Amino acid sequence: MNFSSKLLEDAVNEFSKLPGVGQKTALRLVLHLLGKEQEEVDTFGNSIIRLKRDIKHCNICHNISDLPVCSICSSPKREKEVICVVEDTRDVMAIENTSQFFGAYHVLGGLISPMDGIGPSDLFIDSLVQRVATTPVKEIILAISATMEGDTTLFYLYKRLKDFQVPITTIARGIAFGGELEYADEITLGRSIVTRVPYVNSIIK
Amino acid sequence: MNFSSKLLEDAVNEFSKLPGVGQKTALRLVLHLLGKEQEEVDTFGNSIIRLKRDIKHCNICHNISDLPVCSICSSPKREKEVICVVEDTRDVMAIENTSQFFGAYHVLGGLISPMDGIGPSDLFIDSLVQRVATTPVKEIILAISATMEGDTTLFYLYKRLKDFQVPITTIARGIAFGGELEYADEITLGRSIVTRVPYVNSIIK
Repeated sequence: MNFSSKLLEDAVNEFSKLPGVGQKTALRLVLHLLGKEQEEVDTFGNSIIRLKRDIKHCNICHNISDLPVCSICSSPKREKEVICVVEDTRDVMAIENTSQFFGAYHVLGGLISPMDGIGPSDLFIDSLVQRVATTPVKEIILAISATMEGDTTLFYLYKRLKDFQVPITTIARGIAFGGELEYADEITLGRSIVTRVPYVNSIIK
Repeated sequence: MNFSSKLLEDAVNEFSKLPGVGQKTALRLVLHLLGKEQEEVDTFGNSIIRLKRDIKHCNICHNISDLPVCSICSSPKREKEVICVVEDTRDVMAIENTSQFFGAYHVLGGLISPMDGIGPSDLFIDSLVQRVATTPVKEIILAISATMEGDTTLFYLYKRLKDFQVPITTIARGIAFGGELEYADEITLGRSIVTRVPYVNSIIK
């Protein structure tokens, strides 16, 4: 692109580093912000700088938090003995939105991915093992994506946790509610028949 | 969404004000930036703050520029007597990318849009009239989008400029190169037959 201004070019280049944002989209976003008041643009720019500088992670579950212990880990209403292990904070938010889970979380901060150079020591796995070893735990739910990295991580977690005599479960896989059978992939459909459940258990209460 | 952190929520809300960015995309972008070093995040945030604070517009054509007169308006190689009138800086960049135009520009800064409360006085129309009145001009090319706002603006510009005895042209409308006739809309196809040109003129040199 032929930029008429170095400042404009810099801003567009910064925006086009974001995932899924190309140069044309970056230019559109930058011109949109240029049309705003200085105050609004300052708020925008500073919100991300401040977030990065002041962000904390919960000492217990490693979820993003403004306090040393997050609101879930410090809530007396949550069942701390049930730990749901997830990849990142987005998964915590997704599960919280369902209002179906009342235990605590453990955020790994990623998945094991040798291709990207991420090994078990780069994730909060040791602290999970530590947590299971030192606090009373009734169940560990592994809510990890069913991808290659997810399966690798699941397998590794299982190996590290299986000797603690704590039930280890994973979230149910199957056809989504509202999903049509003919469009489901073979593996999901096949497994959903093998792991069929009594009808009365499948009703949403 | 259930945010575990106020700082995170603020940043996501700021990003989701951008056009075409919803809350989920905003969260993805913010978490992507959180994974970067503090220095990179500062560069990102400051690039847009600095752009807004230090941005200048060319005194002649009103295009975004780092100098009081932009590189096109100050170039001795450009034919200043041919003025191409466009909506915004994106159009200047698009036309410059074609390497087919060697005149100067005039950036209106938008289009007349009564629905959005944008009238002729909000745009650089008076300064265009002034420019045509005070400097030698051989041709005015109106390169404005063929939308309702564009047509309104075209009509208004024509009314303001027609008494100057300067040829006023618009960019050619028609079927795009590589475009298939059967998918063209009726108005474009109809006009492209009415405004047909000698074959020799249509060859790209």
